[in-house]
Amino acid sequence: MNMRPVALIGAGCSGFTTAKRLVDEGIAFDWFETSDRIGGNWAYDNPNGMSSAYQSLHIDTSKWRLQFEEFPVPADWPDFPHHSLINQYFNAYVDHFGLRGRVQFETPVLAVARRGDGGWDVTTKHGTRAYRAVVVANGHHWSPNRPVWDGAFDGPIIHAHDYRTPFAPLDLIGKRVLVVGMGNSAVDIASELGQRSITARCIVSTRRGVWVLPKYFNGVPADKQAAPPWLPLGLARWIGRRKVKSLVGNMEDYGLPAPDHEPLDAHPTVSGEFLTRVGSGDIVVRPAIARLDGDGVLFSDGSREAVDAIITATGYNIDFPFLNPDDAPVVDNHIPLFKRMVQADPALHGLWFMGLAQTLPTLVNLSEQQSKLLVAWLTGRYALPPPDEMARVIVAEGKKYQGHYYASRRHTMQVNFEPYVADLAAEIRRGAKRVRPAAAVAGARAG
Amino acid sequence: MNMRPVALIGAGCSGFTTAKRLVDEGIAFDWFETSDRIGGNWAYDNPNGMSSAYQSLHIDTSKWRLQFEEFPVPADWPDFPHHSLINQYFNAYVDHFGLRGRVQFETPVLAVARRGDGGWDVTTKHGTRAYRAVVVANGHHWSPNRPVWDGAFDGPIIHAHDYRTPFAPLDLIGKRVLVVGMGNSAVDIASELGQRSITARCIVSTRRGVWVLPKYFNGVPADKQAAPPWLPLGLARWIGRRKVKSLVGNMEDYGLPAPDHEPLDAHPTVSGEFLTRVGSGDIVVRPAIARLDGDGVLFSDGSREAVDAIITATGYNIDFPFLNPDDAPVVDNHIPLFKRMVQADPALHGLWFMGLAQTLPTLVNLSEQQSKLLVAWLTGRYALPPPDEMARVIVAEGKKYQGHYYASRRHTMQVNFEPYVADLAAEIRRGAKRVRPAAAVAGARAG
Repeated sequence: MNMRPVALIGAGCSGFTTAKRLVDEGIAFDWFETSDRIGGNWAYDNPNGMSSAYQSLHIDTSKWRLQFEEFPVPADWPDFPHHSLINQYFNAYVDHFGLRGRVQFETPVLAVARRGDGGWDVTTKHGTRAYRAVVVANGHHWSPNRPVWDGAFDGPIIHAHDYRTPFAPLDLIGKRVLVVGMGNSAVDIASELGQRSITARCIVSTRRGVWVLPKYFNGVPADKQAAPPWLPLGLARWIGRRKVKSLVGNMEDYGLPAPDHEPLDAHPTVSGEFLTRVGSGDIVVRPAIARLDGDGVLFSDGSREAVDAIITATGYNIDFPFLNPDDAPVVDNHIPLFKRMVQADPALHGLWFMGLAQTLPTLVNLSEQQSKLLVAWLTGRYALPPPDEMARVIVAEGKKYQGHYYASRRHTMQVNFEPYVADLAAEIRRGAKRVRPAAAVAGARAG
Repeated sequence: MNMRPVALIGAGCSGFTTAKRLVDEGIAFDWFETSDRIGGNWAYDNPNGMSSAYQSLHIDTSKWRLQFEEFPVPADWPDFPHHSLINQYFNAYVDHFGLRGRVQFETPVLAVARRGDGGWDVTTKHGTRAYRAVVVANGHHWSPNRPVWDGAFDGPIIHAHDYRTPFAPLDLIGKRVLVVGMGNSAVDIASELGQRSITARCIVSTRRGVWVLPKYFNGVPADKQAAPPWLPLGLARWIGRRKVKSLVGNMEDYGLPAPDHEPLDAHPTVSGEFLTRVGSGDIVVRPAIARLDGDGVLFSDGSREAVDAIITATGYNIDFPFLNPDDAPVVDNHIPLFKRMVQADPALHGLWFMGLAQTLPTLVNLSEQQSKLLVAWLTGRYALPPPDEMARVIVAEGKKYQGHYYASRRHTMQVNFEPYVADLAAEIRRGAKRVRPAAAVAGARAG
């Protein structure tokens, strides 16, 4: 049977950093991308419909932390680059490493099916082909989570995924706008719309209080002050909490609901302007929506606001439209993965997921690291542990990385970049010993 | 000769707090206002043309510090109110104290002339009338200081005084805009225009580096943490400088020019968003303009920017269009005043100036305090010191309040609210003793 080694799905940052690693290792692969361009989420107005970027979007990770280890960011960049710079950087990477010609653009993957022989059939408009492994890098910030409420609303309801500017797709100038949520998209969009020359009134509805962190701590990008990887995560969090509280004070002093959790016990909401806008009365804060009410909205505290448009900034679903749900079961927006990359079931070891994590500080350069384990496995230099050990590690690392977060669909795949990368490196060393037990024993004796 | 006691010019916050005091004291006065409404600078789009408020303007003083001691702000106000709230508050004050009916609206003062008998002739469209005293409360944020450069510019040049929104009076959407200056109007306007959905490019030109302070220090409005009045000003500044530097770090780390002075050695530029916008590359910073160059501007470092419109946020002139310049000589935007209220020359003791100071944190409630000295003088409870002593005090207090600032037309009338108010109270006590030397001696013996 003539199986190709690898099918790679997606040409965003998780896809193209994986492609670069495959090229380096001389591993043959077919690479499919729905769009006519690379960049995925960071290609503003991406014709594949999978970019959730709005025009005002800046990454909330500093350039120091998002850059690829094999391709540094331009020296003259600002600390927190605009999405257009990120996209330029991605394109420069792809051209620098000669990857563009390898992408089959405008070729969505229609289906991925498990074969009887351990391989995988991948179907595109060009037909079906068999692969030893399928590497899924289709992103997880493109399939909107759209909440449903009782009642009916007369005006438009759009998801943050579709929001571009105060002018498009809806002309919101002079309107009364409700933004639902207090994640990063919500506070960015509300900060933009709350300005007095933009909307007549801007309301944020949130079910719970959230800590909003600034981009700068004492003049230095906050993520440049992250704890070193050797510091125990619990201690790092304790220090971080004290720092955040001393820096921003109490959320309720700005007029926000008090969080029911400690700072850093949720994926951080980061904004350089939201708190000042709330404290300046530009943004009105309301609790959860009780029901839609014609030309307005009723909230859980009994208050009502007349509203012209609603923007739901309520996050994204993990979504693999081309996979059989049995091969990648997502429950409560969660799919359990060993090292956030592969399932424990040996029948599914040919199905790998890249960048399927909510990384702190960023996802941009995560697959550049994950792909090291992937290619070690593809080339036989690395072996996975037994399935029961994989399952145990999945549970243990879930506790390690996500255990302190409050339970939420927002927190099913959090990891901290530095300790996670250290874990990956250690796992690659362990997996190498599984491949060559004799060498491992000799190595252990020598050490 | 039938002279009225007082002519009061202007119905902004300096005017109406003075009017309230005159009413309380039973002092008869005529009150002239050019506009059809009260509020002056804080009446957005004031038909008298003297409001410099843009739609996004919020006061950078917290509600705790701007409120009148005789009329507290509403309890449900945000920390940093929008100009529309300030204007509501002003109107509520005027109505609460029954002052509105006393204003002669749409009655600009055309001329104020010194009479031979110590009184003053005030001319309006209704004719000329004589007064014992003229109280000038015409504001000092309405007469734009318009810089002049070599060369010619093809596009529009407007002053911040005329800027309202990104849409008016110029449609700046998608344009390349140059904002000149780094004072409070400049950073507000640049922060608004720098947003990616508003302009194509936003450039700030500044001749010198400036410290930009946030509105909140550690979650508390910065001005709520001001030094107590008993702390020597020099020590208070030293503490404040350390705090500012620890809070915002180095300006050059954001991509701004390094200030050539210490924090608080300039009138503070305050913004909750400007530094993040610069650090996010939304605002491009250039040095002083060298010359206008057709469809662009050349800067002192030799760089050039193509520009569609220029907004000069270059401050305001002290301007008394109705006064004879000999009666109120303004040199380098400075008029020397005893307690920032009256000139040393005895021939000019009937000419009083209210709110003619650059107060920290705010000018809003300054005349409420200054008017105490004014009415004490008008009712004979207070006597001014001899002219040579007044002249000495003017120089000494200039050093005390303005001495540490770098020399600039921006810094000719700075005062710190708390110590200034304490000085006023002490001066009222001293002046009372000048009126009744016997009682003063008795008081000194009793003490």
